[in-house]
Order: sequence, then structure tokens, then C-alpha cells
Amino acid sequence: MAKDEALARALRVRRRLRVGPHGVDLSRLDPGATPGLSTVKDPKAWSAAELATLGERLAGYQERLYAGAQAGADRRRVLLVLQAMDCGGKDGTVRRVVGTLNPQGVRITSFGAPSPQELAHHFLWRIEAATPAAGFVGVFNRSHYEDVLAARVRSLVPKKVWRARYDEINDFERAQAADGVTIIKVMLHISFEEQRARLLARLDDPTKHWKFHESDLDDRARWDEYQEAYAAALSRCSTEAAPWYVVPADRKWYRDWAVANILLAHLDELKLDYPTGDLNIAELRKRLESAEKSDVPGDQGEH
Amino acid sequence: MAKDEALARALRVRRRLRVGPHGVDLSRLDPGATPGLSTVKDPKAWSAAELATLGERLAGYQERLYAGAQAGADRRRVLLVLQAMDCGGKDGTVRRVVGTLNPQGVRITSFGAPSPQELAHHFLWRIEAATPAAGFVGVFNRSHYEDVLAARVRSLVPKKVWRARYDEINDFERAQAADGVTIIKVMLHISFEEQRARLLARLDDPTKHWKFHESDLDDRARWDEYQEAYAAALSRCSTEAAPWYVVPADRKWYRDWAVANILLAHLDELKLDYPTGDLNIAELRKRLESAEKSDVPGDQGEH
Repeated sequence: MAKDEALARALRVRRRLRVGPHGVDLSRLDPGATPGLSTVKDPKAWSAAELATLGERLAGYQERLYAGAQAGADRRRVLLVLQAMDCGGKDGTVRRVVGTLNPQGVRITSFGAPSPQELAHHFLWRIEAATPAAGFVGVFNRSHYEDVLAARVRSLVPKKVWRARYDEINDFERAQAADGVTIIKVMLHISFEEQRARLLARLDDPTKHWKFHESDLDDRARWDEYQEAYAAALSRCSTEAAPWYVVPADRKWYRDWAVANILLAHLDELKLDYPTGDLNIAELRKRLESAEKSDVPGDQGEH
Repeated sequence: MAKDEALARALRVRRRLRVGPHGVDLSRLDPGATPGLSTVKDPKAWSAAELATLGERLAGYQERLYAGAQAGADRRRVLLVLQAMDCGGKDGTVRRVVGTLNPQGVRITSFGAPSPQELAHHFLWRIEAATPAAGFVGVFNRSHYEDVLAARVRSLVPKKVWRARYDEINDFERAQAADGVTIIKVMLHISFEEQRARLLARLDDPTKHWKFHESDLDDRARWDEYQEAYAAALSRCSTEAAPWYVVPADRKWYRDWAVANILLAHLDELKLDYPTGDLNIAELRKRLESAEKSDVPGDQGEH
């Protein structure tokens, strides 16, 4: 596929999956769908091959982003926020999509239940601390959105507290974006039945038992409430500065492909390029070609 | 190659490259050598294929390490320290070797010149802060060893200060190791001529200019002093708790292969396994198979 064709497709997929100004009704979005794709033969192999190509391109953009910051002037950075119900595929997306990037320029933060120290601060305290520095791609595996998801469904804070958080999140994200952060928020949307199948598969595989927590079943029992809370968060917080995408995630091969395309569309938009230095090439080359090892002996007494 | 054969080879390579109790004389170690390998046909392709196999095995160990910590009980973690002269291949090693791991379980820290805040603390302050948490593989791209390398060669601190640091480093690393950190320190050993070639290649390639700093030439002019300082650090600080390895690094394909093998040898030694949970599988399966979506409606007023 020609380069511009791949980009055009990425832009189409991104548009299809974006939560627009009218919000989202998750019950009308099929977690098994593959928006933007017609029938694919041998989809797993196809997606793996696509991902290899997309990943190479993403890594190329990432190197430019990193280089721009290293050279000093460019403060831009990227933040990918991943949210999903349990078994939604956050870990797999990190491994397979984020894994195509150079790990040196990636900062991944997994947010679990807040620690006592974190609870002693505003809910965005730990979030701000984990935002990526210039040149980096930050990844949040769960995020501040748990503070309007789990916090709301499980009544961890009073209603008037979590109700105020949507605006606080929008303000926070707008300020980050204005400071150079490209924020990309992805909800991996799986079905109740697919979650059941994946949880059962975990039970069947002793090497996956460590991922199984009985408490996951309590969240599962509140599935509809979580879907409502997700819909509210996605509808209220999908902004120009920080859009939300809903990626159907029952098919892992589609999920990976879609997330890679969304990233591609955003990274391309940044028009990243290698910084042009002001090196005096000719002089530096001369210095390099002529120089021999120093004659000054080291501090021989130190061995 | 059979699994145990690969392990036996990794153990051999590790033994060959380790800095022993008598210290090291870097001038007697050929940066172009390939210890542990007989002649290889098409070495780049061979190494890439090897690395794919080794990487899969490393990622398997890493998942067990991560799982053990997630399940709560296992505090073990791994720290890979990379040091080298400029162009020695630290970044390439991170991308190609560390890149085979799941990025979610990796924490990479690049240490540059200390900030004013860092200088206002003991030199190990920023180091301790960057050590990996249980279950993680930490990677230091440069490290506290710069405090006995650059600090010594460029006289950034008085001699009596840097002289005391070798023991402080050994004490620090011993305490970390006793607390469950597997410390693996690798010096990527390149030749003066290979550095010249790589710096010239950077000048020839505009997409690599951002990696070129004129100050690198100042360090290059002190090559012998740096080699002395490296020899002192490696000789004094290669301990049981935290051994140093010198990896000949003029050939990138050997460098990657050797570092992967050293990691493999250490990770295998940890005898990592998935934690055995105390899940009541039968009951959980029953709950999962019978459960339907909750009937409780979400907070409809919140959309």
C-alpha cells in the first residue's frame, strides 16, 4: 500500500471511531465490528503484517519527536490513554502496539487503586506527575478516568465530588494540550460475552491465574453501571483538545490495527521532522579525521 | 538449538565477558572480537534470528518476574546498567535487546548531566529514585558510574570525593542486591577508530545530526583517560552482588547477541515461575457461567 494511501485510511478509521460532539451510546456500538475494514482473509496474519508496517512508521515519527526534544527546542509530547473493562485488551495493546516503538522514548504508567499518599492529594496529582516529558510518548494503562468510572460506580466519593470531575478533567487536558501534549484517549470496547470467554480462558490457564482477581467479578456484576459511566465520561470529555475513541475490541487483531491507525493519524498531523542543527560539518569532520588518541596518561595511581 | 544448549552457551558467554577479581585491562580486550563465537556466516542475519529467539525467551522470564510481583509476594527485580563511550551502542542495545521485552514491565532511565536539584543531593539520590520496583526490569542508560568517569576525568569534583565513591557504589549495590535486585552491569567496549567511523557517519546523515554534540569531541580527546577511569571503575566495582561485563561492541550484531545472552543467563538463574494462586477455580467458573448482566440501571440522570 502506498504511503499516502495508508495515511488516508488511518484518517478514515480515526474519524469513524471518534466520539463526536453528540456523545456516544455504547449499546449501539458493536464490540465485534471492524469499522473501516471490509472482509479480510486470514485476519490475524493480515493484521500482524499490517502492524509491522504501521509500527515501523510509528517508530519513525517517534524518533523525530524524540530528536526534536533532545535538540532542545521542541516541547511536544504524546499521551495515549487506555481504558477498558477487565480483559478489554489494555495490556495486549501495550505489548503489541506500543511495543513497536523504541522503549527508550516511551513512559508507561499503570494506575491502580490510589495509595494513601495519592488519596491525600487531588485526584489529578498522580496523573500530572506521570505526564510525559518533551519528546516522549506517555501511555496510561487506566488513568484519571477511573476517578469518574470506578469512583462513580462503587461510590468511592460522594456524587457531588465525581460530578465536578468531568470539568476538572477537561480543564486539565486542555492545559496539557495547550502546552504541547497530543492527547489520544482510547476506550477498548468489549462485550459482556467476550469478557466472560476471556475470564474463563484465564481460569483454564495456570500461567494466567495471576491476572485473575475475584474482585473483577464484582465489577462485572455492575456491567451496565460501568457502561453508563463510560458513556458519560466519553460523551462529556471528548474534546477538540483531547478526543476519545471507541475501538471495538472483541477481535484483538482489529483492536491492535485500529489503535495503531489512530496513533498514526495523530503523529502524522504533528508534521515532525528531524531538527536541523547548526553543526559546522566540514570543521567537525576535519577534527575527527585528524585527531589521534590523547598522549596524556590517565591517573595511573588509581588502579 | 535445544533450550538447554542455548542456556549452556549463555552461561559460557557470560563467564567469558565477566570482569573477574583481578580486574580488567581494557587495552588487552579487542573491541572487534566475538568471544564465545566461532566464525558465523552472514552474521547480521544470524544475529537477528538469534535475537528473535532469545528475546522470546527473555520476554517469557520477564512475564514471570512481573507476575510474581503482581501476585504480591515476590519483590525481585532486575537492573541492567549500560555504560559506554559515545557511539558505543547504548541506544541501539536498548532498542534491539530491551525492545524484545514487554514495555509495560520495563523502566528506562537516561542519566545526563545532573540538574541543579540533583547536584544539591548525594550523587546516588537520583539513582535510588530510579531503581525498578518489584517485578520490573530497570535499565540505566548511563548511570552512577558517570560519577567516577566523567566526574573523574573532567575533575567535576575533587579527587578525594570521587575516590570515595567506589566504595559507596559497592555498598549501595550490595544493599540493593540484598533487597532483591539482580544487578547486571555492561560496558560496551568500542575502539577509538570505530568511534571515529560512527561519528563521521553521523555527520554524513542529517537525520543523525541531533545525536551529535561538539562536546563529544572533548571527551574523545581524553580517550585514554576515560579508558583508565573505566578500568578503575570496572575493576573496583565488579562484585559478586553486581558484576561488570565488558562486551566488545565494534560489531553491533555481536554486541546485541552478547547482551541478550548475559541477560538470559541471569534471568534463568532466578528460577522464575508463575505464582500459584489460591483461586477456587470451580466456583469462579460457575459464577462466570451463570452470571447475566446486572438489572440495576445506571444513573440515567448523568448523561
